[in-house]
Amino acid sequence: MSTSGRITLEHGSGGALSRQLTEQLIYPILKSEAYGELADATSFEIPGRVYITTDTYVVDPPFFPGGDIGTLGVFGTCNDLAVCGARPRYLTMGLVLEEGFPTSDLKRVLESVRRAADRSRVRVISGDTKVVPSGKGGGIFMNTTGVGEALGPHLLSVKNIKSGDKVLISGPIGSHGLAILAAREGLKIAASLRSDCAPLFPLCEALYSLGKDLRFMRDATRGGAAAVLNEAVANNSECGLEILETAIPVPGTVAAASDLLGLNPMEIANEGVLIAVVAPTAADKAISLLRSLDTGREARQIGAVAGRYPGKVILETAVGGRRILDLPRGLLLPRIC
Amino acid sequence: MSTSGRITLEHGSGGALSRQLTEQLIYPILKSEAYGELADATSFEIPGRVYITTDTYVVDPPFFPGGDIGTLGVFGTCNDLAVCGARPRYLTMGLVLEEGFPTSDLKRVLESVRRAADRSRVRVISGDTKVVPSGKGGGIFMNTTGVGEALGPHLLSVKNIKSGDKVLISGPIGSHGLAILAAREGLKIAASLRSDCAPLFPLCEALYSLGKDLRFMRDATRGGAAAVLNEAVANNSECGLEILETAIPVPGTVAAASDLLGLNPMEIANEGVLIAVVAPTAADKAISLLRSLDTGREARQIGAVAGRYPGKVILETAVGGRRILDLPRGLLLPRIC
Repeated sequence: MSTSGRITLEHGSGGALSRQLTEQLIYPILKSEAYGELADATSFEIPGRVYITTDTYVVDPPFFPGGDIGTLGVFGTCNDLAVCGARPRYLTMGLVLEEGFPTSDLKRVLESVRRAADRSRVRVISGDTKVVPSGKGGGIFMNTTGVGEALGPHLLSVKNIKSGDKVLISGPIGSHGLAILAAREGLKIAASLRSDCAPLFPLCEALYSLGKDLRFMRDATRGGAAAVLNEAVANNSECGLEILETAIPVPGTVAAASDLLGLNPMEIANEGVLIAVVAPTAADKAISLLRSLDTGREARQIGAVAGRYPGKVILETAVGGRRILDLPRGLLLPRIC
Repeated sequence: MSTSGRITLEHGSGGALSRQLTEQLIYPILKSEAYGELADATSFEIPGRVYITTDTYVVDPPFFPGGDIGTLGVFGTCNDLAVCGARPRYLTMGLVLEEGFPTSDLKRVLESVRRAADRSRVRVISGDTKVVPSGKGGGIFMNTTGVGEALGPHLLSVKNIKSGDKVLISGPIGSHGLAILAAREGLKIAASLRSDCAPLFPLCEALYSLGKDLRFMRDATRGGAAAVLNEAVANNSECGLEILETAIPVPGTVAAASDLLGLNPMEIANEGVLIAVVAPTAADKAISLLRSLDTGREARQIGAVAGRYPGKVILETAVGGRRILDLPRGLLLPRIC
């Protein structure tokens, strides 16, 4: 099949051209023995607890420094499984292509899916492709649904969080959202930034070895670190978080670009950063586990769980002040994932 | 949350308004004990073989006679599991909303999802909502990924098909695609048609009781009956299908509207029709099993597997002629599911 052409409505018709797209473009890149023989559904076996998660990626532009919608579609969904204490195993992929989308771009995205899936040791086992008329889509949208197997019986939950626990972050924040924004708007101030898009499973597996000392972890995507920190204590009537602003790793470029754009780095989406809450006695070990891995080499403690402001996240500023870090309000950056 | 308003980009930001949408609109309709506590992933246990399938629904318009995108999103995906010999158990739901989409329409769609899920005995256990800027979407797109448990060890496959087998259809064809077309284009000629959108699991479970005498079944959606019949023998070097045109149940309104519009009813999408291939000795029993159920009351045999035209579907016409029924070519009806 020519990859110099463009997607037409007929590619989504369920007829001859649909079959051609599947057999000549998608299968050569993604098909494995696990991929159903043009079947409606495919099957697998996982003994014990199975985790499932779904995410649709609508990132604009679909290609950006550090990744593309295919990288994001694999790592993003696998990360959602990993932070729950699950080993990602399988993905399904649902594409919505806009009429006129370049076939060569689709091929490039699928090749990214393949590479990211190989790196994450997951297999794409089922897919679906729809085509919408020009002007009724955004180029390419990708849903991935991920299936994983539980790493063990310990269930991670915000309900495990206790006063005295420590709050850790795995690495520097803000580069994903700003890289997307710079690519979309042609902003020179953040042009050197690359998305941090990366698999978090190795970090999660390492932390999971702490057993019950690991209370909760979450990747800081939409809504950034601010959203995750708030989620951790949103329904907690006994504890809040005290976060030291100076401890949060913000790269110089991110700080400068955020300042100029009036954005708060804590609210910017990341795709390769997790926040974890661990027992106080386990904090040092957790940090050294994270630092032993490449994506966690700048891991550090950023705060603690305390009883003073139940349900709230308090940011202790550089000059010793305190303010509430709320859930992001207003619109920061649309279509960053 | 007001349901008189419209979806804004901020509803997809991951911040306060995202949470409000989830907690005040989605959860009251869909949340069950199984729905993760705002978690990234949720879990279940299914011993043995697990089936999974994914489909994105982009139907235009989202509301049509006989159903809406919510009904379709549940029944369509559950049907894909059912025809593989699986009992649908869980669904994930990924929404892509276009800025400006009416909140009341979203509520109506979610209520349809709930009703269809209750009727199908499946639970929506995980979800994701993205918002794209006005002009970059199609109102509402819905991905559902379905998980089911194997009804038994017998694997259905086109590879089971043998010469002499009989081909059955569960009911009349063509009403779904034409109902969508009529609703979209305001065509009076098909205005009385309703989508046949319905759960096929009861039919599939009944046929599965035939054991190995049931070779293969498939719901005739995109590409219609023509696509399924071709799929059944596409890679078969020994057998083809001989289908009796007069045996195919085409309602009068469908026949008349198709004639006027220049469409072939065999190529029009259905959402409540399956085609099954069974052993010759099991055909009568299969038909009576199907007819004992409401959606199968017009089930009948439409042809047989034979050795004369390997890999082809031959249509025996009313006047005794024979022609090849090919995969649909060209664009029939975009966005019918």
